[in-house]
Amino acid sequence: MKSFNVTLKKVVDDSYDIDIGYGLEDRLINDLKNGLCCGYKRAAVISDSIVAPLYAEGICEKLSENGFSQKLFVFPEGEKSKTRRTKEQLEDDMLASGYRRDCFVIAVGGGVVTDISGFLAGTYGRGVPFVNYATTLLAAADASIGGKTAVDTPLATNLIGMFNQPKKVYIDLETWKTLPRRQLSSGLCETVKHAMMADKEFFEYLENNVEGVFEFDRTVCEHIAEKNCDIKYSVVMKDEREASLREILNLGHTVGRAIEVVSDYRLLHGEAVAIGLAAECILSESMGLMTGDEVKRSISLLNKCGLSTNIPDYIDRDILVEKLYTDKKVRDGKLRFIVQDGIGKVKQFGDSWAVGVKKSDIQKIIYDMK
Amino acid sequence: MKSFNVTLKKVVDDSYDIDIGYGLEDRLINDLKNGLCCGYKRAAVISDSIVAPLYAEGICEKLSENGFSQKLFVFPEGEKSKTRRTKEQLEDDMLASGYRRDCFVIAVGGGVVTDISGFLAGTYGRGVPFVNYATTLLAAADASIGGKTAVDTPLATNLIGMFNQPKKVYIDLETWKTLPRRQLSSGLCETVKHAMMADKEFFEYLENNVEGVFEFDRTVCEHIAEKNCDIKYSVVMKDEREASLREILNLGHTVGRAIEVVSDYRLLHGEAVAIGLAAECILSESMGLMTGDEVKRSISLLNKCGLSTNIPDYIDRDILVEKLYTDKKVRDGKLRFIVQDGIGKVKQFGDSWAVGVKKSDIQKIIYDMK
Repeated sequence: MKSFNVTLKKVVDDSYDIDIGYGLEDRLINDLKNGLCCGYKRAAVISDSIVAPLYAEGICEKLSENGFSQKLFVFPEGEKSKTRRTKEQLEDDMLASGYRRDCFVIAVGGGVVTDISGFLAGTYGRGVPFVNYATTLLAAADASIGGKTAVDTPLATNLIGMFNQPKKVYIDLETWKTLPRRQLSSGLCETVKHAMMADKEFFEYLENNVEGVFEFDRTVCEHIAEKNCDIKYSVVMKDEREASLREILNLGHTVGRAIEVVSDYRLLHGEAVAIGLAAECILSESMGLMTGDEVKRSISLLNKCGLSTNIPDYIDRDILVEKLYTDKKVRDGKLRFIVQDGIGKVKQFGDSWAVGVKKSDIQKIIYDMK
Repeated sequence: MKSFNVTLKKVVDDSYDIDIGYGLEDRLINDLKNGLCCGYKRAAVISDSIVAPLYAEGICEKLSENGFSQKLFVFPEGEKSKTRRTKEQLEDDMLASGYRRDCFVIAVGGGVVTDISGFLAGTYGRGVPFVNYATTLLAAADASIGGKTAVDTPLATNLIGMFNQPKKVYIDLETWKTLPRRQLSSGLCETVKHAMMADKEFFEYLENNVEGVFEFDRTVCEHIAEKNCDIKYSVVMKDEREASLREILNLGHTVGRAIEVVSDYRLLHGEAVAIGLAAECILSESMGLMTGDEVKRSISLLNKCGLSTNIPDYIDRDILVEKLYTDKKVRDGKLRFIVQDGIGKVKQFGDSWAVGVKKSDIQKIIYDMK
């Protein structure tokens, strides 16, 4: 027998910039002209049916005016589109349109668009460059940092995907004005999560100022966008691959993702996570890690954002409990939760940020919730 | 406007070992017990309908005997299975069987199995570890080094996939004995390609000894397996991401892949590439880079391996020429070929290893071939 060693050690630099501002289309074009995406001249602009006419078409026009070849690829809006099938259709459309490896992807939209586009870009021709042009508060808060891309499957959300970093992210606050109030509320959920897990001062800022988002108060919108980047970045920086610390971003998501699926996506992501955050607060309280008053303040802030923390009547709570076991944090068949240690902090357990929770314990909490 | 820099610079070590020998199942189990795959205890064994009963089932038994939980996931053998749909079915089966992120994949089979399994492992739970247990000469020659994983689509082969390095590769020469002669011949094609592009001495060794493979001569089989690793490694080492040098591995593949698709996979991969190599030799000769005698020797060696270099009658040569334009080396709509500079060497063109070729030139060669 012979053994052969393949040595593949290297330095990888996936660093990138996030621009936060109002109307960033010209900046995007300028960056592309300066070689942002390997100097390639063929853009595949991916968007959904709502965002395409609002922003993606305009970006396509500017691309053409500036010497890029471009085509817009649109899929139906909504979390239900975040499937392998949508990715496959986009790939086939791009292949049929002659796209090869010398192209780049511009994702224009919210989290669904950036998630699916980043995943597609990562596997198209074994990887082409991409940028995110984020048009929702949720994408700004959640999808723009971390490089997590994925699609859902009938059995689990976000379980098929990859880590793939964009070349750049644009957070266009101008686009928040066209968001329906329900989408703004849903988007605020990840913002509240960030405050709950990492920044008490920011939590208090939100308690006092969050209404400003609905009035498009520039100072408030900018502060929220920046704080989201700050907090998420400080976590992702320390742990890109979710080995441990990054798990804290799952705060509220164990119940949140399950309820999102069980609702068959009638609940928006943020709406589902809001309920998950409430459940997690109650769990933290039951472990002696939060006071009743802190739980009340947390639920109250979520409500102030326009988010209900009640489980809708149409949700079967037994099915919900079973669904929890499809969570990606499950180890050896055991549920694991991120829990808080008061407002603005998560609890660490030895080396881990997740704690095993008995089925009966979480079952009781879910049964007792409104 | 504010700009925010996300710094993600790190050292990545994707190094791994390749073991070449006879009956390596116990070695595999031993390595796994020593923590090869992050110490995980849940194995998803992926194989095809031919290899599963021959080798994968035995590996599953040994896994169980040694305290691993395991399940065998089988898909129909053949290049036609190398699709997004097969990947999706395997994913759904694994999800339904409760596989989460704390699992690893063992690919047992030839190139189709290792390609699809490596891609699946790269996107399952955003990446789980995998090992390749290669049971064909082709997998030993081609698929075991380089980390290229992919599936085919109706419009192009290998265009959807990713670079994903295995934790280890096992090349079990014992398995070659169960390969049909046609498969052995097909597998030898990549071996001949390696010699043609990088090693004149090895080319001459093959001219004198290649028959030994069909008699399972241990010395010949081992030498061929090792030489394949040597040559491929020396190329991949220098250029993991196929930016330039790695393109030389595409020798013969521009025509080869196209003919494989146009034949609707009636031709095995190696059978198709053999025709592609012949076309490339004639192209090299037309550019004054090979002598007529060198072309003759090359074709003669391919024939000695049991590979025909004639284009089958059922292939429409016009459709074949059009199909060339789906090659991933196409830039700005122009065909690019890797060509030889005599036996054992490829020609470099400035910074590039691929040269633009006019449609009429390659058309003429394809029309004139037997």
